[in-house]
Amino acid sequence: MNEQMMQSIPLSTRIRLARNLKEYPFPAKLSAEEKQLVNETVRDALLDGDDAGNYRYIEMKDLSSTEAVSLAEKHLISPEFASSADGRALILSNDETVSIMLCEEDHVRIQVIEPGLSLDKAWEKANALDEKLAARLTVAFDEKLGYLTQCPTNLGTALRASVMLHLPALSRAGLMPRLSSTIAKLGLTLRGTYGEGSKIVGELYQLSNQVTLGISEQAAIQNLAAIARQIMEQETAARETLRTDNVFIDRIYRANGILQSAYMLTCSECTDLLSLVRLGAALGILDVPLDTLTKLLTAIQPATLSVQEGRVLPAAQRDVLRAQKVKEALQNA
Amino acid sequence: MNEQMMQSIPLSTRIRLARNLKEYPFPAKLSAEEKQLVNETVRDALLDGDDAGNYRYIEMKDLSSTEAVSLAEKHLISPEFASSADGRALILSNDETVSIMLCEEDHVRIQVIEPGLSLDKAWEKANALDEKLAARLTVAFDEKLGYLTQCPTNLGTALRASVMLHLPALSRAGLMPRLSSTIAKLGLTLRGTYGEGSKIVGELYQLSNQVTLGISEQAAIQNLAAIARQIMEQETAARETLRTDNVFIDRIYRANGILQSAYMLTCSECTDLLSLVRLGAALGILDVPLDTLTKLLTAIQPATLSVQEGRVLPAAQRDVLRAQKVKEALQNA
Repeated sequence: MNEQMMQSIPLSTRIRLARNLKEYPFPAKLSAEEKQLVNETVRDALLDGDDAGNYRYIEMKDLSSTEAVSLAEKHLISPEFASSADGRALILSNDETVSIMLCEEDHVRIQVIEPGLSLDKAWEKANALDEKLAARLTVAFDEKLGYLTQCPTNLGTALRASVMLHLPALSRAGLMPRLSSTIAKLGLTLRGTYGEGSKIVGELYQLSNQVTLGISEQAAIQNLAAIARQIMEQETAARETLRTDNVFIDRIYRANGILQSAYMLTCSECTDLLSLVRLGAALGILDVPLDTLTKLLTAIQPATLSVQEGRVLPAAQRDVLRAQKVKEALQNA
Repeated sequence: MNEQMMQSIPLSTRIRLARNLKEYPFPAKLSAEEKQLVNETVRDALLDGDDAGNYRYIEMKDLSSTEAVSLAEKHLISPEFASSADGRALILSNDETVSIMLCEEDHVRIQVIEPGLSLDKAWEKANALDEKLAARLTVAFDEKLGYLTQCPTNLGTALRASVMLHLPALSRAGLMPRLSSTIAKLGLTLRGTYGEGSKIVGELYQLSNQVTLGISEQAAIQNLAAIARQIMEQETAARETLRTDNVFIDRIYRANGILQSAYMLTCSECTDLLSLVRLGAALGILDVPLDTLTKLLTAIQPATLSVQEGRVLPAAQRDVLRAQKVKEALQNA
């Protein structure tokens, strides 16, 4: 199996731990003032001495909705968290690999993102923050149930681990529905992402664990890693069959040509074209760094574009700016 | 009116004169040997001394069908002439501006092609050849009817003058059907060209005279020139409205991007994309020489590609070669 091709498939790894403080009701039952108290208590526990300079503490009410949506586009917060600022705060590391949502569904949601398939590293970072939290505050925990969370589906480890996978060859072969249903039987989910509404764009899929009860964190993570690797092997094999398909090679070349020439690009079309070019780069058909393409997949998102530009852009202007940014990035690459 | 834009509209001008030798029946009534006699009689009359080195005399049976079709793609002979070699010959100038079909429908069809709108120059060249022919051979001519031709629609001047016009803006505005019917009332025809079957590709239209009886050559040519200029003015005005249409600008940029990146291009798609890029170049949106694009419109034709390559190519290989040729030509331009 072509290891280099394998490693081009995972874009990023996320670990999320849900935690609640024992002495407070869940956020849904808290007033705005009580939420603020919880947020600041957690902030003071986590951001002491050494760490203080590496993180920002952000009250969500201080962000414009565009800024909040941009954070969701980067997967630093949940879309739900972006949708309302009410009593919510965010601890964000300067390198944007660690984001801690305060008073979302639970008091604390520690999230770590790492590039590629990097479950162990992400887990270590999340676990270190969790240990610091537990050392300073009393976390709601039950000997039988494990960590207590607002939603019963998170009870136990309260761990959600996920890997974002680029699966264009399996998608094109029409294999995703069957694969998703097989994965579901193994207690994981595999679903399309970056979609507007229910449309899967960019052939990007998120593989995540579902079971949090009766399984250790390590076992859940190992399980996820093993299944991610199996999917990556299947995708790699499916990609090999595309190498000799001239119609497909033509589509990849054209996608690259359109990205380098279009005057306007919608987010959805741009994502689909980037997906094709990323596949072409992974196959060695095009000479474009994978990293440039992976970054563009986030940078071209609507709110992120507006934040970069420093003002809220109407859709038509955004489409023109998106085309410019993509052109520049590809020409500089 | 923008004269530079105006001049980008006509691709080429053609003058064709049909002539028959008085002492022979029309070609349809001639045996193969008699046709050969006619052909060689005309050849010997036209290709003496000074002119001999500037022309080739080609018996059509010595050409492969691909070579013959390539000549038709270049508009040097009629598709009908290319379809059968039987007793036919061609006098072709080395610069391919003059082609004289021998024993097509009539004994002699003198054709002159000039780039752009150049009716007077083309007429002068055709007329000089006609005078040489008449000085040395007896041409079938009737005081009342004028030049006698096999088909009664050519009786009289036996002159067909035409201009190839690039009318993308009028086409896009849906104005062609009405314009064609107006032109028909003026005794001219305006019809799509380069089509496979009846499909108009490339937004290229041929304007030609229809009336050959009761009108002098000069009047027919002046009439055609005046109407060509009117159509060019309308096209120029229609193009101005496209300058501020971002959706249209986007299509032009993309057409250029696809032409510079595609791995395969069918003739029909390639022609349509070249048409868009040619329009973009004329509008100053793209920096590509018009001449390069005009030449490509012929060079990408199926048989012409095979002749350039020196062998008959299957369609799929031709599409790959076409994409390469276009890419090279645009990058060198």
